[in-house]
Amino acid sequence: MHSELTTTVRKLLLQRDYLGIKRALERNHPSDIAKVLEDLLPDAAGFVFRLLPKDLAIKVFDFMDVDSKQMLLRSLSSDMVATILNEMSEDDRTELFEELPAKVVKRYLSLLSADQRCVADMLLGYPEDSAGRLMTTAFVDLKEQMTVDEALEHVRATAPDKETIYHLYVISKDRKLIGGLSLRELILAPGSALIKDIMNPEIKSVFTETDQEDVARIFEDYDLIALPVVDKERRLVGIVTHDDILDIVREEDTEDIHLMGGLGAPEETYFNLTVFEDVKRRGGWLALLVLLSSLSSNILKAYSASLEAAIALAFFMPMLIDTGGNAGTQSSTLITRGLATGEIDKRHARTILLREITTGFILGAILGGFAYLRAYLMQGDTMIGFAVGIALFVVLFIANLVGALLPMLAVRLKLDPAVMAGPFLTTTVDVVGLIVYFEVAKVIMGLG
Amino acid sequence: MHSELTTTVRKLLLQRDYLGIKRALERNHPSDIAKVLEDLLPDAAGFVFRLLPKDLAIKVFDFMDVDSKQMLLRSLSSDMVATILNEMSEDDRTELFEELPAKVVKRYLSLLSADQRCVADMLLGYPEDSAGRLMTTAFVDLKEQMTVDEALEHVRATAPDKETIYHLYVISKDRKLIGGLSLRELILAPGSALIKDIMNPEIKSVFTETDQEDVARIFEDYDLIALPVVDKERRLVGIVTHDDILDIVREEDTEDIHLMGGLGAPEETYFNLTVFEDVKRRGGWLALLVLLSSLSSNILKAYSASLEAAIALAFFMPMLIDTGGNAGTQSSTLITRGLATGEIDKRHARTILLREITTGFILGAILGGFAYLRAYLMQGDTMIGFAVGIALFVVLFIANLVGALLPMLAVRLKLDPAVMAGPFLTTTVDVVGLIVYFEVAKVIMGLG
Repeated sequence: MHSELTTTVRKLLLQRDYLGIKRALERNHPSDIAKVLEDLLPDAAGFVFRLLPKDLAIKVFDFMDVDSKQMLLRSLSSDMVATILNEMSEDDRTELFEELPAKVVKRYLSLLSADQRCVADMLLGYPEDSAGRLMTTAFVDLKEQMTVDEALEHVRATAPDKETIYHLYVISKDRKLIGGLSLRELILAPGSALIKDIMNPEIKSVFTETDQEDVARIFEDYDLIALPVVDKERRLVGIVTHDDILDIVREEDTEDIHLMGGLGAPEETYFNLTVFEDVKRRGGWLALLVLLSSLSSNILKAYSASLEAAIALAFFMPMLIDTGGNAGTQSSTLITRGLATGEIDKRHARTILLREITTGFILGAILGGFAYLRAYLMQGDTMIGFAVGIALFVVLFIANLVGALLPMLAVRLKLDPAVMAGPFLTTTVDVVGLIVYFEVAKVIMGLG
Repeated sequence: MHSELTTTVRKLLLQRDYLGIKRALERNHPSDIAKVLEDLLPDAAGFVFRLLPKDLAIKVFDFMDVDSKQMLLRSLSSDMVATILNEMSEDDRTELFEELPAKVVKRYLSLLSADQRCVADMLLGYPEDSAGRLMTTAFVDLKEQMTVDEALEHVRATAPDKETIYHLYVISKDRKLIGGLSLRELILAPGSALIKDIMNPEIKSVFTETDQEDVARIFEDYDLIALPVVDKERRLVGIVTHDDILDIVREEDTEDIHLMGGLGAPEETYFNLTVFEDVKRRGGWLALLVLLSSLSSNILKAYSASLEAAIALAFFMPMLIDTGGNAGTQSSTLITRGLATGEIDKRHARTILLREITTGFILGAILGGFAYLRAYLMQGDTMIGFAVGIALFVVLFIANLVGALLPMLAVRLKLDPAVMAGPFLTTTVDVVGLIVYFEVAKVIMGLG
């Protein structure tokens, strides 16, 4: 969709048909125009951006990704930058400022009006990934003594500057949040009714410090469009709107998936990362993992007498460590995801322990039996069959349990459980698995 | 929050204080009441549910999970079931019917009013995971000749039965979708203006057959609250609302994570699965993986002459296969996630190929160098150092490339790329890695 539009714009740029560009873009959704600007080279993007009518330009800017916003701002005049920064939505501005060097933020803050500078300073003052960073102060507030007609008039008068008008918040004289109602309820109520009689006093809210994951969870649980944010004195200071929530859920899930994939937390999307940055990021983790797994070389060397006595033991090493790794990956994935979606929390540690002991035991017994058969049939030797079968049972049992418990431990230590669910788990399990294997083999086969 | 409420309700149930239960629940959000009912045993849940006022009961029902809905319906009288099924939201009803056996659906359909039966039949007729299955027909439609005042009157009159009134859709005489506008725009427009002059004719829509992942992507891209759904003739047949989208994103991400964790697609959440079902699900995949990885035993047996000649080769096997697996996991995770978030699509195959050749080469060279040193220092043997180092370079290079390309191949074959990114990849890479290792060793060390 937007890639065709990009092609059209590029063609018109070459033909210097600037009016044509303006006309082609204007008919499109700001989100699509934003994608076109992201695709163009910075100078061209700046040029095309200046062709847009001001109101549209600001909407387009809000839809651009943070990197493209930064680049675009660099190519615009101070006047234009000041207009955008003053009129863009407050939550997007906070997100942008978070990414910029302190010096640039300082300069940009000086371009804001006194009011907006005050708001921007306040929002940047909240901790990273908190509700305060996500919120906007552009909400509609009502007084409890207003009539429905007065409230509707107030909504109409202030609507153009507000992030949403579909949820309205009722505050006391000292600005404490005392209730809320939807525009739908307001429209359906009789004009002379008082707000305090139709508002819902049990409205959900979060604190400025509430973590964004918890904010997202509340949006999910209550199917919200907006959620009010209060300070420690329960004064209403902002609202978080639904459009930020999908981004957070995606971000958090991407972070979990990358951690579980042994990539560390994602800094950038695939194409925004240069090959060099990518190599640095992946290489660091891979090197650590190589170091960890190379411990297995020393372990095996220590068992070289056993290996030499029964070279066939080596044949089943990969199957054994693969299965341990796979079982650990399964249980750690289940628990980590359960923790992320909120189904599991730290109170469930005991339940999970008991359950995974059972699951690991059954799975270990079945697959251990299979491994016995596999080794016995291949080597025609009962003892090696027993050694492989029993070792697989023990390794699978341990790996499954460790995979389930490590994420629970991570939660208690206030670490991200996803780190524990990735290659670190499988690599550690491999090292442990080899020790189990050779100890079991030594006992059963009577090796030295 | 809801667990305290559950405790309260349980206590009041024992005291037979039914009025107390009603009072305790009424003050809470339907979502919290739904969670209490999910926590109670089915009979108790049915009993408590009947204590709720009808309007609240229907809201609570909408918030319950599908399993609890099924159980609750079984404990209610036919009259009550009929009321709920007729008044619950259409999209939640479709979701419920999807899960029920055909016989039960037939009986439930017979309890619906003629109108509702017609709607339910239509919605169930759309393909699974399509926009048609997610949508509701309870939208507000306007005619282009209406004035703003007439439209506002129409909104007010129909609001109580509609899923949302914040987005309004303009249809032609033959019910084709010709535009849309928000309630905000309607409220801000002069009362005598015509709808056709203020509506936005370039409104986004999807077809009934559009896949739910694409629907979610559009909500994300355009920050929507609702999205209209049209049939092949572009007649407006329903809308999808924002509250379904977060669930879809979570569902799709959970599915990807489980597939990447070697668990298959999730049928149920952790605690909704019995240990037996869990063992069956995990065991099937684990057994397949054991079978696959046990191929390595045959491979190693074929190389037993080399192994016996240089037992030290066995020491570095785990490090080698772990590193291959980890590199493959990294690149497949990156690509699979990029595909899921829409950053990457099948047109990028060439770019990814070139990029991963570079990345794999650099990572392989660095870590291969490290592996050389590790093996040389441990064994004091240059040849074994070379064998391990070069093999690790080749294995990492191949694993990284295969990890990146398999998900791309899956997309072309219209399979879920996440299946390719899990233990199947690492286990396959392990088998391949061993062959590479011993072939390299044979050449370098001159083994038989």
